[in-house]
Amino acid sequence: MKIYLNGNFISDQDVKIEHNDRGFLLSDGIFETMRAYDGSVFCLEAHYERLTKSAKFLEISFTITLQEFKRIINNLLKANELNDKNASLRVTLTRGTGPRGLIPPENVNPTLMATAFPFTPSTPKPSKVIISQIRRNEFSPLSNIKSLCYLDNILARSDANKKGVDECILLNTIGNVACASVANVFLVTENGVITPRLQEGALPGITRKVIMDLCKANNIPVFEQAITEVDLMKAKEVFFTNRLIEIQPVVEVNSKLINGGKVGEVVLLLQKLYKNKIINSFEKNEKIPFA
Amino acid sequence: MKIYLNGNFISDQDVKIEHNDRGFLLSDGIFETMRAYDGSVFCLEAHYERLTKSAKFLEISFTITLQEFKRIINNLLKANELNDKNASLRVTLTRGTGPRGLIPPENVNPTLMATAFPFTPSTPKPSKVIISQIRRNEFSPLSNIKSLCYLDNILARSDANKKGVDECILLNTIGNVACASVANVFLVTENGVITPRLQEGALPGITRKVIMDLCKANNIPVFEQAITEVDLMKAKEVFFTNRLIEIQPVVEVNSKLINGGKVGEVVLLLQKLYKNKIINSFEKNEKIPFA
Repeated sequence: MKIYLNGNFISDQDVKIEHNDRGFLLSDGIFETMRAYDGSVFCLEAHYERLTKSAKFLEISFTITLQEFKRIINNLLKANELNDKNASLRVTLTRGTGPRGLIPPENVNPTLMATAFPFTPSTPKPSKVIISQIRRNEFSPLSNIKSLCYLDNILARSDANKKGVDECILLNTIGNVACASVANVFLVTENGVITPRLQEGALPGITRKVIMDLCKANNIPVFEQAITEVDLMKAKEVFFTNRLIEIQPVVEVNSKLINGGKVGEVVLLLQKLYKNKIINSFEKNEKIPFA
Repeated sequence: MKIYLNGNFISDQDVKIEHNDRGFLLSDGIFETMRAYDGSVFCLEAHYERLTKSAKFLEISFTITLQEFKRIINNLLKANELNDKNASLRVTLTRGTGPRGLIPPENVNPTLMATAFPFTPSTPKPSKVIISQIRRNEFSPLSNIKSLCYLDNILARSDANKKGVDECILLNTIGNVACASVANVFLVTENGVITPRLQEGALPGITRKVIMDLCKANNIPVFEQAITEVDLMKAKEVFFTNRLIEIQPVVEVNSKLINGGKVGEVVLLLQKLYKNKIINSFEKNEKIPFA
């Protein structure tokens, strides 16, 4: 496997992360997870924009242009013989190496790493989930940033796994729905499709945005709002979204059936619309240009 | 500089952290910061115990015995010619490498790294601090664990730095005092010395424990309790504790002088008691045995 690291493509066993990389020592970094369909990365520009925006907020140096970013991703896929295949990709950006202490050093070169793996698409299975005991901290700006701080999510997801369910929902500290361990949360109600506002501690998911845009384009009412546990439990349908699973139907929350335990019609419709959206986006020359 | 990594002492430029170390990708790990006085690590056993306890909670494999741990630390100091010097040490333990995804792999070898640096002791300067806008998540078990998730603290501390002060205090999500960016918080009040309860989001600091024990042994009333912002602002004295700075007097919070801007007498007394405690602990053969 070939990995992109700071300008070079290197065999994975030769990749060396420095012992004093602040990403390793202090979770001082961010990442993006992307998905390629037959070699084309969906919403690549949106991922680039989010990465750029998060880096700017954290004052992590990131000077790669969109064109360079596309070239890196494309060459990474080629280097791994994935340029016409389905793949998952991860781009990791850390502040770089530094001496002891929290305050970022002044002159520091960021670490940029990108990996690509073969990915086998599958229809997301109807999922059983629990509400986690761990709460999402909506009082931290990191709740809106895809940072390396993932240990809360690991704990929540591991607990769900041990309890024999597929995922979990994290409430924020005042008890509203925030997110799943690796996904955004949507509900279908009498009034339309709803998803937590970002200020509830939700990540501004790229798939979340695609789903909201698809709803708007197809006259499905869609709202960002505060969602209570009561709202969640009486929803007509519940689903999760992320880059890799796309749209994951939830049929059970804390042992209570949602929609009688069956995948709902809004989920099925959105899955169809999402698939068409992917096809259309690549037909409209949004395919990444070969470098 | 020589670094301990998974059983070996290696030159720092040769140390290689794997690209898929979960500590690097997902902050899936913990650490300890220790301080050596003339080559002797203070409270080494307490650090070992906290590391062991945190690893157990997170289900990170950690099978090193206390004797082995002492030997590693001692050999690390020797390898860096610090075995009779003042030093700061950091031990980092991550879950190890793994494939994509949050759920920890079943068979995984943890990464254990230890570093030691020369440390020049100094009297902590009377500090000006602000209350951070970022809140500590007392609803996460990580608020009581020295995990790699440090980006909230980095943001809080960087902001304090930009505002020209020395440190910051993080409140928890209900507005009680939790901690500083890299320290525990203590107040001196009419009733005695108080510090936030662990359930407020405070880390069970090793120095925090030493200070509480010193208070008890010297008939200074000491309590763990909820501390509001009002309590903080009307405290007679405020001080921070951590391994490296020991006891740091705070003389200004959000531009309001504490104790007229002077270091208080309880802080001065505790600094003296703490110094004696260190000397006594090493005289009583608590010095780490040479391997």
